[in-house]
Amino acid sequence: MMTSSVQKTGRLYLVGAGPGDINLLTMQAYRLITTATTVVYDRLVSDEIMALVPVTASKIYVGKAPGIHHLPQEQINDLIVDLALSGKDVVRLKGGDPYIFGRGGEEALILTDHNIPVEVVPGITTAQAVSARLGIPLTHRGLATSVRYITGCCASELKGDMDWKGLADSETTLVVYMGLSHAGEISDNLIGQGMPASTPVALIENATRSDERFVTTTLGNLVQTAQAEGFKPPTIIMIGRVVTLADQLDSRHHFPVEEDLVAHG
Amino acid sequence: MMTSSVQKTGRLYLVGAGPGDINLLTMQAYRLITTATTVVYDRLVSDEIMALVPVTASKIYVGKAPGIHHLPQEQINDLIVDLALSGKDVVRLKGGDPYIFGRGGEEALILTDHNIPVEVVPGITTAQAVSARLGIPLTHRGLATSVRYITGCCASELKGDMDWKGLADSETTLVVYMGLSHAGEISDNLIGQGMPASTPVALIENATRSDERFVTTTLGNLVQTAQAEGFKPPTIIMIGRVVTLADQLDSRHHFPVEEDLVAHG
Repeated sequence: MMTSSVQKTGRLYLVGAGPGDINLLTMQAYRLITTATTVVYDRLVSDEIMALVPVTASKIYVGKAPGIHHLPQEQINDLIVDLALSGKDVVRLKGGDPYIFGRGGEEALILTDHNIPVEVVPGITTAQAVSARLGIPLTHRGLATSVRYITGCCASELKGDMDWKGLADSETTLVVYMGLSHAGEISDNLIGQGMPASTPVALIENATRSDERFVTTTLGNLVQTAQAEGFKPPTIIMIGRVVTLADQLDSRHHFPVEEDLVAHG
Repeated sequence: MMTSSVQKTGRLYLVGAGPGDINLLTMQAYRLITTATTVVYDRLVSDEIMALVPVTASKIYVGKAPGIHHLPQEQINDLIVDLALSGKDVVRLKGGDPYIFGRGGEEALILTDHNIPVEVVPGITTAQAVSARLGIPLTHRGLATSVRYITGCCASELKGDMDWKGLADSETTLVVYMGLSHAGEISDNLIGQGMPASTPVALIENATRSDERFVTTTLGNLVQTAQAEGFKPPTIIMIGRVVTLADQLDSRHHFPVEEDLVAHG
């Protein structure tokens, strides 16, 4: 393939890989992944999706895991800038959606600072995948008029200016990413601000993966349940009355032969 | 194809068609749409996506438009139940994600009441598509630690128990669906609860369609801008400091030859 004489730097595709299931990739993500020549990817991108990358492509892992040594964000920024400036088209793969808790905005800003063309491809969030699969609509007439995503990852953010009063809204479905180690704080503060201790809560570990685990409890029993069941990160916490609908809507009960779709589709 | 002797009722696939662009369909949605025999679809599903449905399939329109006569939800429920009970596999297509302001939960409940197997396929929300394309990360370190979707569609919901104090959080990106006719109320209440009038706001009409329009303003000037520019529904309102990033990250500036991807991908 000829290199364009107009454009010497490569393009950067900041691509949401979704929750891990190939079926939930967007068409555009699938096309970019399966034709990539250079892929820079995170820990949350599934093996199944990485297996779609051509064997001839360079695959560069920049994963982060809590408490484990990882490539600092600054080094990731430098890496993707260097790759693009050297003329490579780069597929930067992130779990979920790059612009929802993906630090995609930070990477995009650095790239545009260097005049590197960036295209962002949104991805299905883990919350959406869980919602669909386990039967927990994120909004539902009479139960939730709003849905809100927050992250419990950064203790400083949670302990600092967190607006617990605003969060303790029983009309809103609250999705907490990376909040397991702050479950006690979340529970105490929401109840302290008037949210009923009986508010339904779902815990989902390894959401959408083969080793997914799912349990429902209440806000008051959140910590006890998480400990008793031995939940570990990555675990998503969903808080709100919509969680009760899972009893009826959990598609795992209704689609015992769901695999047919993949096999024959 | 043989009809299974085990299962006489059809299956119901509640499928998110995303914002309208085929590139943003999930792989699973694409497969279901392109192999469908019966499709029940809403107004928000694009012509481009409906063109993927096989010509031999039954296509049943149940669209709703504000202020225009439409099929009441109860009749839609009856229709999809009848279709499935008569043995038809039905693809129920909704704009965006069925479980975010799609009333998908209501339809799923009715279906499971009739023991009809339901599978829900999540879809990219218009907010995510807009975020990616116009360069407005929904969360961003230092600007937004949370993102929240609300709807301005139902005056009763907005005027009733709306927790304006909780909504007026300058650390949260607020995405308002169907809120244009309530812009004044939204602006007044948020400012009244302490949100700065200078808070950046984006208005996006016909998001992701060929006739998309995009303008940025401030919370204090929201109504004036919407009127001066003649914005009409469907318009999404995004409120929060992340809107300022669009100046730098709007991919329309960076990808003048974006079409190449589709042509050569």
